[in-house]
Amino acid sequence: MTNKKYVYNFKNAYGLGKELLGGKGAGLAEMTHVGIPIPQGFTITTEACTLYYNSKKKIPEFLVKDIFEHIKKLEKETGKKFGGDHNPLLVSVRSGARQSMPGMMDTILNLGLNDITVSALARETGNERFAFDCYRRFILMFTNIAKGHPRTEMDKMLDELKEKKGYKLDTQVTTGELRQLVYQYKQYYKKVFKEEFPIDPKVQLIEAIAAVFRSWDNPRANVYRKMNNIPYEWGTAVNVQSMAFGNKGDTSGTGVAFSRSPSTGEKKVFAEYLPNAQGEDVVAGIRTPLHIEELKARMPKVYKQFMETIKKMESHYKDMQDMEFTVEDGKLYFLQTRNGKRTAGAALKIACDLVDEGVISKEEAVLRVEPNALNTLLHPGFDVSELKKIKPAVVGLPASPGAGVGKIAFTAEEAEERHKNGEKVVLCRAETSPEDIVGMVSSEAILTMRGGMTSHAAVVARGMGKCCVAGCSNAKIDEEKRTVTINGKKYTDKDTLSIDGSTGNVYVGAIKTVAPSLSGHFARLMEWADKARTLRVRANADTPRDAKQAAKFGAEGIGLCRTEHMFFAEDRIFHMRKMILSDTTEARVEALKKLLPYQKKDFYELYLAMEGKNVNIRLLDPPLHEFLPQEEDKIEELADALHLSVNQIKARIDSLHEFNPMMGHRGCRLDVSYPEIGKMQATAIVEAALAAQKKLKKPITCEIMIPLILDVKEFRYVKDIIEETAKDIIKKSGQKLELHVGNMIEIPRAALLAGEIAKESKFFSFGTNDLTQMTYGFSRDDAGKFLPDYYDTKIFEQDPFASVDQRGVGKLIAMAVKDGKAHNKNIHFGVCGEHGGDPVSIEFFHNVGLDYVSCSPFRVPVARLAAAQAAIKAKRANKKK
Amino acid sequence: MTNKKYVYNFKNAYGLGKELLGGKGAGLAEMTHVGIPIPQGFTITTEACTLYYNSKKKIPEFLVKDIFEHIKKLEKETGKKFGGDHNPLLVSVRSGARQSMPGMMDTILNLGLNDITVSALARETGNERFAFDCYRRFILMFTNIAKGHPRTEMDKMLDELKEKKGYKLDTQVTTGELRQLVYQYKQYYKKVFKEEFPIDPKVQLIEAIAAVFRSWDNPRANVYRKMNNIPYEWGTAVNVQSMAFGNKGDTSGTGVAFSRSPSTGEKKVFAEYLPNAQGEDVVAGIRTPLHIEELKARMPKVYKQFMETIKKMESHYKDMQDMEFTVEDGKLYFLQTRNGKRTAGAALKIACDLVDEGVISKEEAVLRVEPNALNTLLHPGFDVSELKKIKPAVVGLPASPGAGVGKIAFTAEEAEERHKNGEKVVLCRAETSPEDIVGMVSSEAILTMRGGMTSHAAVVARGMGKCCVAGCSNAKIDEEKRTVTINGKKYTDKDTLSIDGSTGNVYVGAIKTVAPSLSGHFARLMEWADKARTLRVRANADTPRDAKQAAKFGAEGIGLCRTEHMFFAEDRIFHMRKMILSDTTEARVEALKKLLPYQKKDFYELYLAMEGKNVNIRLLDPPLHEFLPQEEDKIEELADALHLSVNQIKARIDSLHEFNPMMGHRGCRLDVSYPEIGKMQATAIVEAALAAQKKLKKPITCEIMIPLILDVKEFRYVKDIIEETAKDIIKKSGQKLELHVGNMIEIPRAALLAGEIAKESKFFSFGTNDLTQMTYGFSRDDAGKFLPDYYDTKIFEQDPFASVDQRGVGKLIAMAVKDGKAHNKNIHFGVCGEHGGDPVSIEFFHNVGLDYVSCSPFRVPVARLAAAQAAIKAKRANKKK
Repeated sequence: MTNKKYVYNFKNAYGLGKELLGGKGAGLAEMTHVGIPIPQGFTITTEACTLYYNSKKKIPEFLVKDIFEHIKKLEKETGKKFGGDHNPLLVSVRSGARQSMPGMMDTILNLGLNDITVSALARETGNERFAFDCYRRFILMFTNIAKGHPRTEMDKMLDELKEKKGYKLDTQVTTGELRQLVYQYKQYYKKVFKEEFPIDPKVQLIEAIAAVFRSWDNPRANVYRKMNNIPYEWGTAVNVQSMAFGNKGDTSGTGVAFSRSPSTGEKKVFAEYLPNAQGEDVVAGIRTPLHIEELKARMPKVYKQFMETIKKMESHYKDMQDMEFTVEDGKLYFLQTRNGKRTAGAALKIACDLVDEGVISKEEAVLRVEPNALNTLLHPGFDVSELKKIKPAVVGLPASPGAGVGKIAFTAEEAEERHKNGEKVVLCRAETSPEDIVGMVSSEAILTMRGGMTSHAAVVARGMGKCCVAGCSNAKIDEEKRTVTINGKKYTDKDTLSIDGSTGNVYVGAIKTVAPSLSGHFARLMEWADKARTLRVRANADTPRDAKQAAKFGAEGIGLCRTEHMFFAEDRIFHMRKMILSDTTEARVEALKKLLPYQKKDFYELYLAMEGKNVNIRLLDPPLHEFLPQEEDKIEELADALHLSVNQIKARIDSLHEFNPMMGHRGCRLDVSYPEIGKMQATAIVEAALAAQKKLKKPITCEIMIPLILDVKEFRYVKDIIEETAKDIIKKSGQKLELHVGNMIEIPRAALLAGEIAKESKFFSFGTNDLTQMTYGFSRDDAGKFLPDYYDTKIFEQDPFASVDQRGVGKLIAMAVKDGKAHNKNIHFGVCGEHGGDPVSIEFFHNVGLDYVSCSPFRVPVARLAAAQAAIKAKRANKKK
Repeated sequence: MTNKKYVYNFKNAYGLGKELLGGKGAGLAEMTHVGIPIPQGFTITTEACTLYYNSKKKIPEFLVKDIFEHIKKLEKETGKKFGGDHNPLLVSVRSGARQSMPGMMDTILNLGLNDITVSALARETGNERFAFDCYRRFILMFTNIAKGHPRTEMDKMLDELKEKKGYKLDTQVTTGELRQLVYQYKQYYKKVFKEEFPIDPKVQLIEAIAAVFRSWDNPRANVYRKMNNIPYEWGTAVNVQSMAFGNKGDTSGTGVAFSRSPSTGEKKVFAEYLPNAQGEDVVAGIRTPLHIEELKARMPKVYKQFMETIKKMESHYKDMQDMEFTVEDGKLYFLQTRNGKRTAGAALKIACDLVDEGVISKEEAVLRVEPNALNTLLHPGFDVSELKKIKPAVVGLPASPGAGVGKIAFTAEEAEERHKNGEKVVLCRAETSPEDIVGMVSSEAILTMRGGMTSHAAVVARGMGKCCVAGCSNAKIDEEKRTVTINGKKYTDKDTLSIDGSTGNVYVGAIKTVAPSLSGHFARLMEWADKARTLRVRANADTPRDAKQAAKFGAEGIGLCRTEHMFFAEDRIFHMRKMILSDTTEARVEALKKLLPYQKKDFYELYLAMEGKNVNIRLLDPPLHEFLPQEEDKIEELADALHLSVNQIKARIDSLHEFNPMMGHRGCRLDVSYPEIGKMQATAIVEAALAAQKKLKKPITCEIMIPLILDVKEFRYVKDIIEETAKDIIKKSGQKLELHVGNMIEIPRAALLAGEIAKESKFFSFGTNDLTQMTYGFSRDDAGKFLPDYYDTKIFEQDPFASVDQRGVGKLIAMAVKDGKAHNKNIHFGVCGEHGGDPVSIEFFHNVGLDYVSCSPFRVPVARLAAAQAAIKAKRANKKK
């Protein structure tokens, strides 16, 4: 039928790669190659999994034949017989995907047992209890996993027995009782499936392999893949391996081991050992494993071999290893090994230690730390020992990492007020709006009941590096009555909450927090990363506070300063509203004059905070109606202040209403309609730059960014306003000033016509949030309603707002970069959407030729590391070519 | 300074093209070449105009020098002297753009006159009165045009004089009085400009040329260009031509002539003659010209030469000519000629006649008719003779052509009711909404007070070919009190209005209408067009009525049947709403079952109406909230009918609210969330196709189109629903059915990933409305607020929704076609946005390789003709290569 090889013996599989063998299969092949003692067996490839799904979930006949041929070989190697009435071969059947998905897919152990082999096994090991325990476990697993039936009833049978007999541990169950259980299980199987339990090991094997293939598509695996960006197409391999028995008595056992501490990185083997047990007991947590010293005490020779092999493995794999092992009658087997998962702190220490030990290069060390993991190191966290003592009252979405403790505040004004009075508060809202920003700054943490990971609260909080739990729908808030209800209990402004933005946990009462440390291993690794990367990293920051935070985290400039946030402060919003409600250009100019000093001061302080590093300031972007009040009382207030009637104000608000604000009168379109706005902002920016230049005594490059450009004529029109305004001011100042006017590329048309625009523009900054929205034709605010259906149906496997869509949006970016460069070789390219802080996206941006990414201050270290990894990977890929 | 030649003598300019010489200049060069008597002169090129604007609105020195060298040559040719004290050379200075813009730019005559030359002219022509009349006119024009000062005061001086003397005609003014006027004019000039009137003809000339260049940028020229898609960059040429004097006495005169009738196309010279006058008198309408027989009577020899020359010109230009001529002292000069503007009816007759006369080929005839002009022939119109007797009461936007007469109806229900009772009504609304559609169908015409050319009323009316005037903001409607107020007068449901959708005119009272004729010249030309074109033309039609209309107009199928309009009828909307408000899939399926028979019947009738031609049916597209009621009373009604509380319904309406409905939960996203909707629609379509196939006794290709696709997996998901549904039904029917499932390309990402999608899809239909919105990042509903600013600032020169944006949106289309074809060579490409009926866009679609366009039924003939022209032009362009 086909010449493709779908099954490989471990001994013949070394070097075929994880793509084909899966991580576990490749590991077993490699271990065999290195000479580590493992139970022998064979791997059925990931391609076989694809074949299975393409064959309507059937294993084709030729493959079945091939599998049995490998069973024959295994019989020869082990001297055991599959289904034999003496010396029976028992095997494990395990999944093994290209990337480890711990606990997500299925495993069946002890396969090959039936009424005949169980007797042989009992006889030959002299341990009848063990044999029937295996048999019992196997029937349970086969029923549950291969046949997909819940294990509840069968578990109940064991529990009832133990209760009846007063047993605490499974090991107390006698042989006779186990035999009885086997009988009960088989009866139950027959009742459920209307057929006898299959006694043919071959039937057992094929059903088990199919079950593992099917487990690739189970709900928890799908969720895990979505969270970890693992494509559905990959499929899983299956490893069939002869069993090693850890439950043969006191000289047997099983365990897991880390070659270094996965929590701290300490250079010391961390292992646990469970005597007289199989591996599943450890994983399932049925019995509590013992310290590895137990093994040393019981079998010092085995322990010595164990420690030596671990050393050998680490020096082979050059990374901290996570292993499973079994001792069968005093003989040591390693069942698997993989690079161990570790905390961010451990990752840093291990990477640095391995460099110091001369095991890996600095570049390799940079690759060893997952950039996103750094996130947890940059924010204060709760004291781990305190967390062990308390349970969360309710759990929401981990919207912005960090830990915050304070009394409940119900409005932004209240939060600000109480903060001024020295109180620590947590702002609790149904959801937040732009008017809440000042209150958010004043709070230790933010808790919202509605909205997802991309809600206003979440986005703004991440921007400020403020701890936030969003969409905590199991807590109810009554903003009028000023209560938060959790589990039926009401909390008021007298109550304290502790919010964990990294987990989404919300605790009642105060928990001790610990501050982050940016020195030591962190500082060393970041230094190596900075040497390796070519992509520059800037921050999105609108305030001197954010700017300073960004600089502390190593930002090389500001890539996006949004000017709109500056208009919401109480002393400014009035003038802003007056400007918007003006009927004539003159009145608008008058109101803008009032705003000018505020803007100038904001920019001046931003320049000072960045000490001469580039600050890229974007002109006003949102539609004007966002600045107008919605509530009746605020409209009345405004009417009074402006000497207008409420109806006049309402009429203007009405006239500014938009059907699709996302696609409305905003961005540079405002400057086209009201050039005086652009003129005021240009004046403020240039005057601030000149003043800062004088103060800092170093030259500043003044970058002004025009949003929402879609045509070169439009760009030229707004650029002319800026440059003409600037010319006069610069001339008057007697100073020199380098002025760079560029634009965002966030509308598909701008990407399509990038060449023309590039001729006039100093830089392109890709606004990948809007570009994604326009390219996909859905707005982020609305997509929440149907995206879950897209994940369920596997149309989407990841959120295009979290990681840039390389095929679609990325194609536009690549086109624009190529076309832009062709028409202006001095142009600079950056990105200032949220993707600028996403490691996968950053690698894409590096490869596509951008000059910098800009992200929220707290993402800066993540971006620096990701940029370094991208550069190293690209260098290595180039070398390979 | 430069080697470029900016000035050409007419004799040396033949063949240089309109781009350089402008239409008028090229015409003068060609006339000279053909041997037609014209006053000699030279052309200053359009490039000089660009140079002028690039030189800060100054004519560079080297160009001034060149102009004067050409004046010297002209002096030699004419034997006259510029500024000479005997035999003075006088010239006209006229604009001449690449494309004719009649009356939009400026002309100065009699240039070169001053106190010295006027005397010489008087002396040498023996006509002092004539000389001073020229001088008077020249001062007036120079002041008004070259200096940009209003002519009001100077006109008043003449009027006051005539009144004082009791003169009726300008010709009654005496020489002495003219001399006195010249003095008065010069005094006035001095008062206004604080300097003497320039006596140096060279100064006069350069100022006049600059004035013509400047006139390219005057407001009326800008408006004209916008209406006619003429790029601002083109610039105008300037023609300096020696004057021929039609006002030298009774053997002089001037006139205009058409070689055939511009109103009917009749093959007969249509000319008017004005003795003893200059051309401007004819154009300005100051004096009423006489029939050309007058020339025959006065100067038979000149008349004979005139008629012979016209024949010569028509046989040279092979088209109906529009000419200006002057007779100076019995000598005939033609001042200009151009292809004459004509009515649509005349265009058809002339094109057919020229073919019959053997002058042009049928292909050439097809090129001779402006496709958009056909529009006026397809709808009933008002009787022209009746229109002369009545003035419009008010004018709105000409939203959908045609003429309609009826009594005022204020609601859709009322319109329907009165229509049923045999009354003719005009539906008057502030604006219309989808619920008004049935009422619109029942009305003779629609009049709205708000909304533009792309408002709901306008778009729907154009779709149905129903006469509509929209945005008639000078009429006020009080829907509650049931009155329409025009010019302060109130009209009620007893009053009759006559609506002209081609002009926007609204008349009070009834005007006789005339029916369109689709036979004769129209039928002949369309037959030739159909032979020439390769692009197929389909119609967008949702009802059998529209489908039949489309078929009558020659549609080769339906390219877009929107299924959503079908849900608004009273007997269906209830089930639709019930479906939307369902909590469970089961309840939804139940409600959909009720809708199925309606949908099936609609589709069945559509198939029958198209008699087996392809009908492309699109799955439900709009967001569901569009189907829910907004008004309190309708919500209550619905709550009653559904046995739900008003609050429950409101909560559901709330939950369906979208921030940007344009980018929300609609199109195929509905089928992903609710596959049962797609299943119901597929069932209805396939069952209808099978039934229609049986009835018609011919096979039907069943085309189903999935809207808003952005990914191949999404397409596959919805296609699978359709195909699996269809498979069962087809199998059960025992018939065969060709089922083609394809998709719209209306989201940028779909265009970017077209290759992948093409592998699975039978056809792409470009939805250029949405594709334009997404590519530009603005919604059509909101863009109205800022687009005027974009036109004013010349960032946009045309409406991207009227004619497809070839550079941006067109690039996406071209990419998608190329990529699609590369991955599926059998795929078909069409367009079903409104651009499918726009001739300029159709040419682009032809060139980019689409297979068909689909447009509203009344645009079908326009599209057929445009498609033919595109094919012929492309063929010719290919030959040239």
